[in-house]
Amino acid sequence: MKKIITWFNVFVLLANLASSSYAQVIEDFKPSSVNQLGKEYPQVNSEGRVRARIYAPEAKRVQLDIGGVKYDMVKNEKGFWTGESDCQQEGFHYYQLNVDGASVPDPGTKYFYGAGRLGSGIEIPAHDADFYALKDVPHGLLSEVNYYSKITQEWRRCFVYTPAGYETNTEKRYPVLYLQHGSFEDETGWGSQGKANLILDNLIAAKKAVPMLIVMDNGYAVRPNERALFQTTVFEEVLLQEVIPMIDTKFRTLPQRESRAIAGLSMGANQTMRIAMNHPESFAYYGGFSGTSNYPSTEPLDADTFLDGKFKDGKMVNRQFKTFFLGLGTSEPVPFPGVVKAFRQMLDKQGIRYTYYESPETAHEWLTWRRALHQYAQLLFR
Amino acid sequence: MKKIITWFNVFVLLANLASSSYAQVIEDFKPSSVNQLGKEYPQVNSEGRVRARIYAPEAKRVQLDIGGVKYDMVKNEKGFWTGESDCQQEGFHYYQLNVDGASVPDPGTKYFYGAGRLGSGIEIPAHDADFYALKDVPHGLLSEVNYYSKITQEWRRCFVYTPAGYETNTEKRYPVLYLQHGSFEDETGWGSQGKANLILDNLIAAKKAVPMLIVMDNGYAVRPNERALFQTTVFEEVLLQEVIPMIDTKFRTLPQRESRAIAGLSMGANQTMRIAMNHPESFAYYGGFSGTSNYPSTEPLDADTFLDGKFKDGKMVNRQFKTFFLGLGTSEPVPFPGVVKAFRQMLDKQGIRYTYYESPETAHEWLTWRRALHQYAQLLFR
Repeated sequence: MKKIITWFNVFVLLANLASSSYAQVIEDFKPSSVNQLGKEYPQVNSEGRVRARIYAPEAKRVQLDIGGVKYDMVKNEKGFWTGESDCQQEGFHYYQLNVDGASVPDPGTKYFYGAGRLGSGIEIPAHDADFYALKDVPHGLLSEVNYYSKITQEWRRCFVYTPAGYETNTEKRYPVLYLQHGSFEDETGWGSQGKANLILDNLIAAKKAVPMLIVMDNGYAVRPNERALFQTTVFEEVLLQEVIPMIDTKFRTLPQRESRAIAGLSMGANQTMRIAMNHPESFAYYGGFSGTSNYPSTEPLDADTFLDGKFKDGKMVNRQFKTFFLGLGTSEPVPFPGVVKAFRQMLDKQGIRYTYYESPETAHEWLTWRRALHQYAQLLFR
Repeated sequence: MKKIITWFNVFVLLANLASSSYAQVIEDFKPSSVNQLGKEYPQVNSEGRVRARIYAPEAKRVQLDIGGVKYDMVKNEKGFWTGESDCQQEGFHYYQLNVDGASVPDPGTKYFYGAGRLGSGIEIPAHDADFYALKDVPHGLLSEVNYYSKITQEWRRCFVYTPAGYETNTEKRYPVLYLQHGSFEDETGWGSQGKANLILDNLIAAKKAVPMLIVMDNGYAVRPNERALFQTTVFEEVLLQEVIPMIDTKFRTLPQRESRAIAGLSMGANQTMRIAMNHPESFAYYGGFSGTSNYPSTEPLDADTFLDGKFKDGKMVNRQFKTFFLGLGTSEPVPFPGVVKAFRQMLDKQGIRYTYYESPETAHEWLTWRRALHQYAQLLFR
């Protein structure tokens, strides 16, 4: 009988170990690279677990809310709550804390615009993080540009990356990439969590990309009488009639189609594909990261009718684009893989040349898009 | 007797009105101008009260924490907590919410670096807000510059304002103002809550200031072997040996003392005064907003010993500075009024010329500093 109880105890112990994430946690946590100055938490360990901590002495329940899952945190005698997530995929993730039902930013992190709000973010160090690291190479500038839109009748803002040397090579003119964010993100995304400036600094220093400007605008735009949040109604008009002329006036650009590229991620891919197809006179390069204009449909596409037949004449599309680029993460959720697959099948059927890049083991998130930009930028303006 | 009771009732009513902030609240609240896109709360009314709201269904106690006072908020049946502050002075204020003891940013606002952390901010509309409003005038650029410091052996960041026309007038060279933040703030302060770019856009458009660059760096800097947070040990060396040469290389500046100004607020005023006095070869203009280098002492100053006798030769100081500017809010708390007064008495005694500006009814906060910059910038490089 004694032996049976012992084996039973061992069984219970093993079952507990297997079901409890705490028992398996590797204790090599370090502060996240996007914490505020001097903040020890949140931390990340070598498995990609996130450990958060917050002082909330009177709270009944505090949770770490990341990747669509809420993890209960535990309070110590001093009033600090601590808890860990399951292992997260490498790259950047939005998250938040939940204090007695209130969803709030973690006071330890810098804040990033996503999901329609400024919230906490965390970096799970990626094995290939070097391509977007801040390194000892010449750095360009990331500039904030305020402009008044007559179409939307409001002040808008874009960010402009100018490569190293732009300020001093005052005779030189540069090609321009127009680069758009995804749904419920904004014009800050690519220059902040997207690392677009650092990716280009590194590529240009290694002579893997030509010096170019990048313009990052806000993809949401409506007429004043249609005032609504997160609507894209007139973005195409704002970009073509206001932003591009403003950029070509304010900066030393090469203002012709052969020196102009457009790209976007997710909603921005969908938007920019329509814009590129509607304006062959304006763009010679297209990049769609984790999105195509047939979203969310995964049905086979009829080139005669899709986007008003813009892909019907494959030879003309091949003449229009020097590069037609598509990118996707191998871990992206439904419907993205099916959407992009249906679109590619249509391209193949029409004999349209394109470059297809798959980001290994990343989902619908910023590491996919950093990698896609890294690939795409190398193909531009050659 | 009936009459007495009536008067007594009136007295009680008046006493209640006087003591209860709720009874007096004017219901003309509007969303704050620095809320995130589409966020209805926090709001501000015409008295300068702040009304906050947060969803926290399981919380026991939620407070609005602003201006050093915590105001209890009240929960409704849907789990939303709402509460108002007393009337705040016009201008910009940092604040936070407290949910069951956890101090967190309000999820409704944009975030600003102050008090050593990114936190919520609110604008109480100022009667003179026009001078820093985003208006239909030519706008300069606010650019983020990453640079590696050999002195601190780490990557640092500054922001650079270039005036409208800088990008296209490629033959022209510009004077530079070096402008520093206060304690527990950082290099983002002047370009965000400080509105330095908009203040200069408006002044330059009205021809009240000459086109100039503004460089806003982080005033905290330590050697690697002294790694500590919020220490200023080597900022003077970083500024003189690294930042100024880098700016003079990267941008088209007029790289001589007559075209270089320096200024700062609070801790930044203290710092920049020392730097200006130590480097007469580098700066011809000084501005101290809400601070002088005798802080926190209000004792009379001995010019023979203060700052190693740098103010001893009044005539030499007058020759060094084309403008020596001091600014202060009339509602600043102890010890600032006494500190600046003692310093001014020393200047008077030494026969040193200076411009003194008082910001009406503002305390030790950003409206004081916006106004001081607005005054100071008009005096530069004439």
